[in-house]
Amino acid sequence: MAEDVFNSSDGSRTAGPLRHARSVTFPGVVKLSGGGTLPEVTVAYETYGKLSDGADNAVLICHALSGDSHVAAHGPDDAPGWWDIMIGPGKPIDTDRYFVICPNVLGGCRGTTGPGSINPATGEPYGRTFPTITIEDMVEVQRMLADHLGIDKLLGVVGGSMGGHQVLAWGARYPERVRGLVAIATSPRLSTQALAFDVVGRNAILHDPNFGGGQYYDRANKPDVGLAIARMIGHITYLSSQAMSQKFDGNRMAPRDVATTFEKRFSVGSYLGYQGAKFVERFDANSYIALSTAMDLFDVGGTKEELIETFRDGDNAWLVMSFTSDWLFSPQDSRALVDALIATNNKPVSYCNVTSDCGHDAFLLEDDLPVYGALTCGFLAGLQGEICERPCCTATEAEVSPTSIFHPEHPHRLDYRRIASLLRTDDSVLDLGCGSGEFLNILRGRGHQEIAGVEISERAIVTCVRQGFPAIHTDLNKGLKSFLDGQFDVVVLSQTLQAVRDVEGVFDEMLRVGRKCIVSFPNFAYHKLRRMMTDEGRAPRAAGLLRYEWYNTPNIRVLSILDFEAFCAERGIRIHRRITLDTENDWQDVEDDPNANADLAIFVISR
Amino acid sequence: MAEDVFNSSDGSRTAGPLRHARSVTFPGVVKLSGGGTLPEVTVAYETYGKLSDGADNAVLICHALSGDSHVAAHGPDDAPGWWDIMIGPGKPIDTDRYFVICPNVLGGCRGTTGPGSINPATGEPYGRTFPTITIEDMVEVQRMLADHLGIDKLLGVVGGSMGGHQVLAWGARYPERVRGLVAIATSPRLSTQALAFDVVGRNAILHDPNFGGGQYYDRANKPDVGLAIARMIGHITYLSSQAMSQKFDGNRMAPRDVATTFEKRFSVGSYLGYQGAKFVERFDANSYIALSTAMDLFDVGGTKEELIETFRDGDNAWLVMSFTSDWLFSPQDSRALVDALIATNNKPVSYCNVTSDCGHDAFLLEDDLPVYGALTCGFLAGLQGEICERPCCTATEAEVSPTSIFHPEHPHRLDYRRIASLLRTDDSVLDLGCGSGEFLNILRGRGHQEIAGVEISERAIVTCVRQGFPAIHTDLNKGLKSFLDGQFDVVVLSQTLQAVRDVEGVFDEMLRVGRKCIVSFPNFAYHKLRRMMTDEGRAPRAAGLLRYEWYNTPNIRVLSILDFEAFCAERGIRIHRRITLDTENDWQDVEDDPNANADLAIFVISR
Repeated sequence: MAEDVFNSSDGSRTAGPLRHARSVTFPGVVKLSGGGTLPEVTVAYETYGKLSDGADNAVLICHALSGDSHVAAHGPDDAPGWWDIMIGPGKPIDTDRYFVICPNVLGGCRGTTGPGSINPATGEPYGRTFPTITIEDMVEVQRMLADHLGIDKLLGVVGGSMGGHQVLAWGARYPERVRGLVAIATSPRLSTQALAFDVVGRNAILHDPNFGGGQYYDRANKPDVGLAIARMIGHITYLSSQAMSQKFDGNRMAPRDVATTFEKRFSVGSYLGYQGAKFVERFDANSYIALSTAMDLFDVGGTKEELIETFRDGDNAWLVMSFTSDWLFSPQDSRALVDALIATNNKPVSYCNVTSDCGHDAFLLEDDLPVYGALTCGFLAGLQGEICERPCCTATEAEVSPTSIFHPEHPHRLDYRRIASLLRTDDSVLDLGCGSGEFLNILRGRGHQEIAGVEISERAIVTCVRQGFPAIHTDLNKGLKSFLDGQFDVVVLSQTLQAVRDVEGVFDEMLRVGRKCIVSFPNFAYHKLRRMMTDEGRAPRAAGLLRYEWYNTPNIRVLSILDFEAFCAERGIRIHRRITLDTENDWQDVEDDPNANADLAIFVISR
Repeated sequence: MAEDVFNSSDGSRTAGPLRHARSVTFPGVVKLSGGGTLPEVTVAYETYGKLSDGADNAVLICHALSGDSHVAAHGPDDAPGWWDIMIGPGKPIDTDRYFVICPNVLGGCRGTTGPGSINPATGEPYGRTFPTITIEDMVEVQRMLADHLGIDKLLGVVGGSMGGHQVLAWGARYPERVRGLVAIATSPRLSTQALAFDVVGRNAILHDPNFGGGQYYDRANKPDVGLAIARMIGHITYLSSQAMSQKFDGNRMAPRDVATTFEKRFSVGSYLGYQGAKFVERFDANSYIALSTAMDLFDVGGTKEELIETFRDGDNAWLVMSFTSDWLFSPQDSRALVDALIATNNKPVSYCNVTSDCGHDAFLLEDDLPVYGALTCGFLAGLQGEICERPCCTATEAEVSPTSIFHPEHPHRLDYRRIASLLRTDDSVLDLGCGSGEFLNILRGRGHQEIAGVEISERAIVTCVRQGFPAIHTDLNKGLKSFLDGQFDVVVLSQTLQAVRDVEGVFDEMLRVGRKCIVSFPNFAYHKLRRMMTDEGRAPRAAGLLRYEWYNTPNIRVLSILDFEAFCAERGIRIHRRITLDTENDWQDVEDDPNANADLAIFVISR
């Protein structure tokens, strides 16, 4: 087995003092949201880069369950940080540009007040007398730290997993104190399955005979077995089944001879035993209980209505990212959040479901950095009104595999300009199948303020976000249920209709969300196309949109202008305007028998 | 929370003597495949129904990890069995018809020799001196039981999960002693993820201070915490995330006050605590270790080549079933098995991936019984050369939701007869998109022996299997990689081409698998269809296959006879024969300008 398999996949490292951490103690009683109190709170944190004179470039990083303040190395000689790939000079979260702050969370065991800290009232470690804390309490302490550092408004708050919970709590509690929120591989509340795994892990710790009611700090034997069991369960849930197979299937009966008392019959067993044994060297069982319980209690809404209520205030921009193979914090969890954020109708929201084999750990690994790194970088730049053109993004973009069937091309652009001319510049516009944001760019140029896109291609979403356009990664055919009735003045479906699987469903949704809709499509009854069937007896083909063969065309809907008009008539869809064009002849308007003489039609419709 | 949530979902029940179990002891040393030996073996088993005079109606049921010999109640007053829904008079495995045998497995703790049994050499329980056993050893003991009962050839061996492992071991080791094998929710070897969960469970038991090296039988305190932790992990993996959400999301903070020392903060926690506490009353920790290790060691092949080698011998019929939401034994695991079985090229194989929300437990629950019960029932009947028309199937079939776009209709049948007339009766034939087996039925009527179907509709697969046709549940567009090069004399694609997404991929595969292929499709250049576009400027529509509108038609490929011929020419596909028909006029052959005058074409092609 390769050595790297035994490197922790969550950025953990050998225990030791966090050399670069500073700390600040806030004297005075802190009331906790669960009803308890702490007589004082100390926060350990590390910073990177410089705070700008206007104190407007601060990015707060929230760590996950087993993380700490050491998010990145402070120089070549420093110990590695848990997110070195994301944070540093020239990295996606560029410390030449941003002032990065990463505090250890409340309840942790790396310098911030937690169960292992000395209770000033007793002179003993809190142990199990440490009160129940919540994610909101962690955020409250982070807010105190921001005050201390003189930061009134954070540029960004960024975190994955439990760090993402903190991002959500910031958005819910202090929306006015942050401009952009980046929630990665997280959820509005844990799935019952994820919560169940936490319960089993805690049961293993609580029933470890060395746990001794939590007051084990002065004992030689600590609840290491229970904590290691909890960590092993965690490790399985952080990886996808595919990733585990890739690592261990080839050699499952060849364990590595690691120093552990746990079962070592199988290679994956020696890995888990090693991870469990290593974890207890640097983590405290009471902290594990405190933090995992905080995650389990976290619940900013189990329904869309509750979530809308939670995030109603504020106009913060959001970037939400999930990973396709993450089963601990599934893409559906992120979608529930995204759906509610969109439905608050007052904030720009972008979402990407990153294709990945790496499971929940994906956001800590290099594999998908070209996507999630570029998205984060572009999003942060957009918060400052800039378009990201730095190497971290441009260098990696080509690595994102394309899934869109359309690439920007000349005819598309002309179509867009004609459609744009039908809009008032104060119209809010949703572009369905927005591609790389070409039409959104035209709209921005015309002064439109509220614009957004929906797109199925991951690569195109990255390009949109890097240009500062809110864009939602989704399949049109699965509906627009995120969006409110009449949320946009205009919804546009440009040259996409002929590739839609569920035409009726898409129309129902489009007409619900847009007060008006603009649809353009190629007319298959165009005389040249008709003649191919009539004279040649062959399926129609042409340049541009119809450049495919019958067996590989994405244009699976063959329709004419008359077909479309009949479709509208049957459904009581009102046609406000019809523009029929001959794109081969300078995009001239066709007056004479458009069903035969126009190759492209644009309709303005509404319910 | 409803009471039923707390009923065990794997058919377990309060401990107690298995009243109806008989047992037989085989004296003499039994050699185990791991190298160990047992001085003697006792098998506890229950039987249902009567063995026929020819001893040809015996069905062996193999239980899962926590099951036992009490597969079904022996009467209305008897304790429930773990598979009462499947086994009994008039049930899918009909005890009026079959002689059902269910033994407790070797290594278990319900009467068959296991770690808790007395070692005759020492007079003490084996404990941890019980040798390592394998799934193959369990099957060896079952084979001894079959001998004892005078059964030379079992009609069927049926099992799910670890029971499915035993089914596979029967197929590998004793193919000549069983006619049909039913492998449910199982795998050729565990995924690394599933194995990892087992490792953690065993670690919890082995490190329980009450485990005491496994010699705890005479002690008051047994390793109940460790066993309960293992059971809790198991329970999570047996359910799908959806199923857990449905059970607990509505009320996650309202635990039931169950008698357990485990954490009860969350409803799912009280459930797991209850299940863990209940399990230790009826199960032995050493058995848990022995059986889960046997599952982890089970490996009949990690590659297709290894699996083909394993199952090369024998002409047993196979029915393999997986469940879409089963992530412990995923559908991919079953597909790996099915692919190899098909590639042995000497046995009839059926496969269904049952759509289910119930996770791994689905095969024990009533929800999907209409599918897996009907399949099992039909398969067993087919082994006796009969077609299942009993109430258990016909009554439930309507509940299976249809996913096929085609239903049997008149034109289809004529098409089939014409295609059949092109075949020699000794041709082996694979029907792609076989629907409910209409064409296979025609072939059987003509005397064809080797026939099989591929179909995407679950309901259609059930209908095929009930008629005794081997049928594989899969999406054509995902390829025919299960099948060997030239495995069939003829592969048929009848009136399906126009609905295929990946036309080129399907043709490549079809021409690889079939020495010849027969393709039929509607000709969209048929004069009537052309005229609709030319004269009316509307997308073509007609009765029958073209009865859809442009926006909802499954016919997404518009092609003519000329288009198809050009396609073949470009790819070097040889056309052996072309039949062009006018289906509106008595299916007459069209000689004159078929591209205009034929509405259906049949091509015989090969690479």
